[in-house]
Amino acid sequence: MGARVRGGGAAAHRYGVVMAGGVGSRFWPHSRRRRPKQFLTVQGRYTLLEDTVRRLAGLIPIERTYVVASAEFRRLIRRHLPRLPVENLIVEPAARGTGPCLGLAARVIERRDPDAIMAVFPADHVIAPRAKFERCLRVAFATAETERSLVTFGIKPTGPDTGFGYIEVGVAQRRTRPRVFWVSRFVEKPDETTARRYLRTGRYLWNSGMFVWRVDVLREALEDHAPDIAQALNSLDGAVGPAVAAAARRKFERLRSVPIDVAVMEKSDRVAVVEGDFDWNDVGSWAAMSTIWPVDEQGNAGRGEVLQIDCRDTIASSEGKLIAMVGVEDLVVVESSDAILVCPKSRAQDVRRIVDTLTKRRNRKYL
Amino acid sequence: MGARVRGGGAAAHRYGVVMAGGVGSRFWPHSRRRRPKQFLTVQGRYTLLEDTVRRLAGLIPIERTYVVASAEFRRLIRRHLPRLPVENLIVEPAARGTGPCLGLAARVIERRDPDAIMAVFPADHVIAPRAKFERCLRVAFATAETERSLVTFGIKPTGPDTGFGYIEVGVAQRRTRPRVFWVSRFVEKPDETTARRYLRTGRYLWNSGMFVWRVDVLREALEDHAPDIAQALNSLDGAVGPAVAAAARRKFERLRSVPIDVAVMEKSDRVAVVEGDFDWNDVGSWAAMSTIWPVDEQGNAGRGEVLQIDCRDTIASSEGKLIAMVGVEDLVVVESSDAILVCPKSRAQDVRRIVDTLTKRRNRKYL
Repeated sequence: MGARVRGGGAAAHRYGVVMAGGVGSRFWPHSRRRRPKQFLTVQGRYTLLEDTVRRLAGLIPIERTYVVASAEFRRLIRRHLPRLPVENLIVEPAARGTGPCLGLAARVIERRDPDAIMAVFPADHVIAPRAKFERCLRVAFATAETERSLVTFGIKPTGPDTGFGYIEVGVAQRRTRPRVFWVSRFVEKPDETTARRYLRTGRYLWNSGMFVWRVDVLREALEDHAPDIAQALNSLDGAVGPAVAAAARRKFERLRSVPIDVAVMEKSDRVAVVEGDFDWNDVGSWAAMSTIWPVDEQGNAGRGEVLQIDCRDTIASSEGKLIAMVGVEDLVVVESSDAILVCPKSRAQDVRRIVDTLTKRRNRKYL
Repeated sequence: MGARVRGGGAAAHRYGVVMAGGVGSRFWPHSRRRRPKQFLTVQGRYTLLEDTVRRLAGLIPIERTYVVASAEFRRLIRRHLPRLPVENLIVEPAARGTGPCLGLAARVIERRDPDAIMAVFPADHVIAPRAKFERCLRVAFATAETERSLVTFGIKPTGPDTGFGYIEVGVAQRRTRPRVFWVSRFVEKPDETTARRYLRTGRYLWNSGMFVWRVDVLREALEDHAPDIAQALNSLDGAVGPAVAAAARRKFERLRSVPIDVAVMEKSDRVAVVEGDFDWNDVGSWAAMSTIWPVDEQGNAGRGEVLQIDCRDTIASSEGKLIAMVGVEDLVVVESSDAILVCPKSRAQDVRRIVDTLTKRRNRKYL
């Protein structure tokens, strides 16, 4: 567990928590049951998980970075993050959503450092440039510390996207960039008309799923707004750590599955939002690659050996074979070591139907 | 060269000539510079070349079957047709179109058997059922023998295809199936309006590029209508055979490149056409596979491990990897050992643009 920490500058109490438990199927054939998106390299040299940890390094050293995931990914995480201290890998006793998951992470960190402020990041987002991100993170840490508020990162919408929840901003706390607001309310994924209206008002941000809070503030918020989670965590308390005892695991398993937004953020009146002015992409499907990979004049993005003749707005990813395309538009073509995906960009979400079909047919080779 | 043949029943004078010199690029990535279409397996166990020879077996034994091609395919042909007698492989001194090529083949066969009737088949067509084909071939042999005519096979058009030359039929010679007509005229590939008109009249057939004639009749026809070719073949005469001497090769090389249709068929007034009532496909591009391979209820054709979800009229050919497609229409996806082709069916002819581009980039690995 490491020794308890007291005192030191504010920076010494900054902790990072990377959530690496996702099991998405939208990146098939690259993502697999045993290798979800966060373990893929979508750009550059590093996997999304590695990038997420490396992105924090300027503010949070690896010794104060934690990764939380289910037991099955333990080995994969160790392989991708060999420098992560063993005790900084928190194994979820059961997948119960981000509410119980982050409550547990906060307890682990609070036992080490009662003055800790923890910043939470999904392991599968693409963010750049790093300097802008770091500035926002510094402001978020300061806000969480001085205001004792629950801080979330909102992203300035680039379009009426219906795939995200939105945050309506209230009174401004900080007017210089990055701006900070009190949160007026969280809203679920809207329909397109509503999303367009949100965009016009200029008062809505995308809910990015990234948060910063003091660990004691989160504990108190859970006690106030999600007492069942708080109690379960209390009873776990002697047992929290990299591995949780069987009895404690059963308590955790009995919890409802609930996201931290629902458990706490939507209910608390001390929620602040930092307006993230960095480029942010949650890499929701292969279609996202046209905004992550470089594109040619016709909007074609390609990785590996790719030949796009008379094509427009296509995405192609080769694993070794030459992908040669003639006369197609808005198409995704992805080669993996044992499969080839072909679908229109607009159907990129339906890649999960392939996974469903393969599952139904028990064709485990490709799952 | 084998001993000269005289006498025997008419069947003993039947010879087959399979033209295996094609160098098409429309079946990339399966067809390559060194392995054109005729050496590919498009259905069943055998390559198109093997199928072409096997299809003749009921009427023409392998001992009387000849294959004509350029020297570079000699080894490939030997591998695909191990039972073909060595002396039955005729090497074209140079590619000068089907006129000189078939003139040469006729000379080779006439030296063996002056009463020979030779039937000519491109090595890269798909034909079924065999019984119907054999019946037509028997009638064609009989017509070529009794009428001393140049016989061609016409195919009843199934649509206003603009990719074929057409044959206008004249007076009927035989009114029972398969019908035989004197040819009124040959016409080049028409535009679509003309093709539709041809179809309406019911008097036009597709020019299939398959012929039957007595070797002496072809020799005389060449003397009448293409004396330059006849003379070149005369001067070659001592040298014709599997390999042609250097001096003879130079004579052949100086010939104009001309198809047999132009050299002889369009000019002779003794041309008959047998109306082929078998299924015939010249396998002009990957798009042809929807009529050759079995299709599902949505019109999707697939070979190998293929998953077509919510797809319509697609063609997919896997070489080992699972090809999984969602929500696409009229698309061709072909995997080879080192490349993947993706193009709309309607652009299947443009596959050659890939080959052109790779050639320009000197990317010989994929050529």
